[in-house]
Order: sequence, then C-alpha cells, then structure tokens
Amino acid sequence: MKNIKLTVEYDGTNYCGWQRQRNGKSIQQTIEEAIGRVTGENVKLIGSSRTDAGVHAKMYVCNFFTNSTIPPEKIGIVINHELPEDIVILASEEVDSTFHSRYCSKGKMYSYTILNRNERAAIERNYVYQYGRSVDVEAMKKAAVYFLGKHDFSAFKSTGSSVKDNVRAIKEVRVEKNGDYIKIYVSGDGFLYNMVRIVVGTLLLVGEKKISSLYVKEIIESKDRDKAGKVVPAKGLCLEKVFY
Amino acid sequence: MKNIKLTVEYDGTNYCGWQRQRNGKSIQQTIEEAIGRVTGENVKLIGSSRTDAGVHAKMYVCNFFTNSTIPPEKIGIVINHELPEDIVILASEEVDSTFHSRYCSKGKMYSYTILNRNERAAIERNYVYQYGRSVDVEAMKKAAVYFLGKHDFSAFKSTGSSVKDNVRAIKEVRVEKNGDYIKIYVSGDGFLYNMVRIVVGTLLLVGEKKISSLYVKEIIESKDRDKAGKVVPAKGLCLEKVFY
Repeated sequence: MKNIKLTVEYDGTNYCGWQRQRNGKSIQQTIEEAIGRVTGENVKLIGSSRTDAGVHAKMYVCNFFTNSTIPPEKIGIVINHELPEDIVILASEEVDSTFHSRYCSKGKMYSYTILNRNERAAIERNYVYQYGRSVDVEAMKKAAVYFLGKHDFSAFKSTGSSVKDNVRAIKEVRVEKNGDYIKIYVSGDGFLYNMVRIVVGTLLLVGEKKISSLYVKEIIESKDRDKAGKVVPAKGLCLEKVFY
Repeated sequence: MKNIKLTVEYDGTNYCGWQRQRNGKSIQQTIEEAIGRVTGENVKLIGSSRTDAGVHAKMYVCNFFTNSTIPPEKIGIVINHELPEDIVILASEEVDSTFHSRYCSKGKMYSYTILNRNERAAIERNYVYQYGRSVDVEAMKKAAVYFLGKHDFSAFKSTGSSVKDNVRAIKEVRVEKNGDYIKIYVSGDGFLYNMVRIVVGTLLLVGEKKISSLYVKEIIESKDRDKAGKVVPAKGLCLEKVFY
C-alpha cells in the first residue's frame, strides 16, 4: 500500500470543520468521498489538525493509504475533478509508510484577519472579522512578545477539550497593519482548543487599551481562562502552513 | 430635495451587474429597493459605471434624490440594515444638486487579479482568474507603458456598445507580482466596453511571449479588435475607486 500525502486549500465557510461529524458536511468526509470515487476504496484520511466550522486553510496536510495504481503525483489532479469548488488539492506525493500527518507535524502557522472599520465587509465577509473600535496596533505588537516561548496556556483554552498537558511553545506572534486590515500570524508547535482565537481576542483587549501589554504576561501566568479575551469568530482564521 | 451620494462596496458574484435588467437581480435594483424600504420613496439611483455580472467594487459611487429627513451621513447606516450581506454602504453624504455620479466622474481605477498557478482557487474562487501558464511579468510591465496617454482604443472594445468616440486617456497600468498573484491596476478617464478585461487579456499574451511588448503599440494603432487578447473573466475585476 502507498501512503499518499495531500496538500489542500479549502474555504471552510460551508463546512462543519475538518473532522467528520454526525450533523453537517465536513472537509474530511468530502475529500474521503472524492477519493472513494477515484480509487473505489473506502479510505480514511488522517488530518494534521481539527479546524473548526468556518475556519479556512491554505496548505492543510492530510494523508491516506491506497492500493490505487494512479501515479501519486497525479492522484491529486484526479481527485480535484471530484471535489466541489471550495476545496482543492494543491499537491499529492507518496511518502514513507511511517508518515502521519498529525504525529509527524512539528508545528503550524495560522493567520487571523481583522477588518478594522465600522462598516461590515461585503467582498470578504466570510474571511475577516469586522471590528469597528479603533485599536492601538503598536500596543498589540508589544503584547505579542509575551506569548513567545514555552508556557502553560491554560488561560487560552476553551472548555470541551480533553487535553491534559497545556504547555505549548509559541515561535512567532506577528501583528501587521495594512490599511484597514490587521493581520496576526501565530506559529507554534501546537495549539490548545480555540487558542489562536483567544490569543487574538486578548490582543484586541490590549489594542483597545482595556488591558496593558504587560498584563498579557500576567494572564499567561494566572492560567485563568476568565482573564483572557473572548474567542473571536472562526471566519477570520486560516491555517497557513503545517511544518514537518 | 436632497442629493445623496453613496459609496458602496459589493461582491458582484450573485448579481447580473450594476444595472437593472429584466432577468436577474442587479446591484442597482437591490439598493433601490433597500432605499425604498427606508424612505418610502421610489428612488432612481444614478450609477457611476455599469459593472458587468460578476465584477466587484470596493468604492463604487452612486447618488439619488430624496425628501427623507434622515440625516444624510446617517442614511447609509440605515440602508445597510436593509441590504444583503454582499452589499454594504461605506459612506453617505449630501452633495450639491448638480452632482451626477457618472457625468461628474473624472476617472476610475480598476484592479484585475490573476492567480498564476496550475491549481484552481478554492478560497478566492470568485475573486481571481486562475491562469496556469507561466508568464514573464517584466515583459508585461514593459508592454503596459504603451497603453499610457490618449489613444483610440477601438482594438480594446467588445462589440455591443453604441459608443462612437473610442478615444480614452489612460493614466496608469501597473503590474505587480506577489507570490502566485499578479495584480494589474488600470486608471483612466473612462473605459470602453470590456476594455480593462481586454487590456489584461493582451498583457497575458505578452506574458506568455505569444506577442512582444512592442507589438502592443501596434495593436493600439491598428484599432483592430482581432489583434488584441481575449476578454478575461469578470470575477478577477474590481472597481477600486471613482475619481471626482
């Protein structure tokens, strides 16, 4: 059997997230069914991350085992013919049988896009979080530094996750302003449930001067979810890259 | 009566274009109906441009006359409550009674976005033209210069327009490459039917080395539509700004 790695771009707007669910169509199920139509096999996709409903991905990675004789670098093109227009396989290749999209991942980069104006977005309504209040981006940049390194991020985890170890290493939190847009890139070895969205929600509290940049350090140390910001909407979030 | 100027952003994907049509919902009709629900009047919107089906706008300008007592700078906010999520009024203001969105316009800037990769777009499927062949962006930049100035652009006009004078003044044709994206900005005092899309189609012929940069000068002088490139898809086109 061959182990095939897929790199996938998707628009999460019309899906219940990556993972198969009883109610609602998932990205995973949609791609598995497309592969089924191509190979005649009942495959199980191994995903690198469980993105939530409405979250997008530019370079998601997943893998599956197949006996298909279609050349590995061509199978992505064939699967694309069976996929809806909001999911596309960017690349396919054969990898070692030990490759596992989630276990082998060394980290991920997410982006979060804020449209910082009073009027809602029309063109990008499914890809940005419209936030009207004026924010101090320099204060957000200062606060971003406190996330870097290895910390117990219990304060930045939504309930409903069974994960016990809340220590994660964050490599980068980059805040960029471009016209009305504020884009925040977050890279790390892994993330707790809703962590990136709570990090962004907390940075917005700093931007609005509701808390100081330094207070972010205190929130991390407190491990207290109530001290951190709210979970910002899913639609602004995009999985940019998975590192191996 | 007050003359109200509106600045509008819209996603043209689900519309037959700006102008009212017998078949299909137009942007104009949608906003006129929203204004009707707000003012109780049967208004006629004067648009600055007839964008085609699928074309988007970031700062479209239109105006209408009303007896409404709602403060002019507030009426946009009120109309927004009556609009679907793919159209938003960014600003409203009272202008002189002689102001006419189309006749007073001094020019417009459009952008055209090409996703230059083999795989189709998933996230931006309605906002870019996916073009797989490799292109020489430097050659396109060289060719862009020949469009500048006042020329008879008959070679860059689709049939079906009753316009007689085909002379237009082009101020800027800027080609920018950013990763897999090629963005082309075109500014001018006015444009013939499909002109921007034919200019982009012609620049792509240059990018693919099917014609030389210099040959663009010859196409303009020939006034021969058959010599220029094809009309590229509407979804990559966006009206960026209207100048007054």
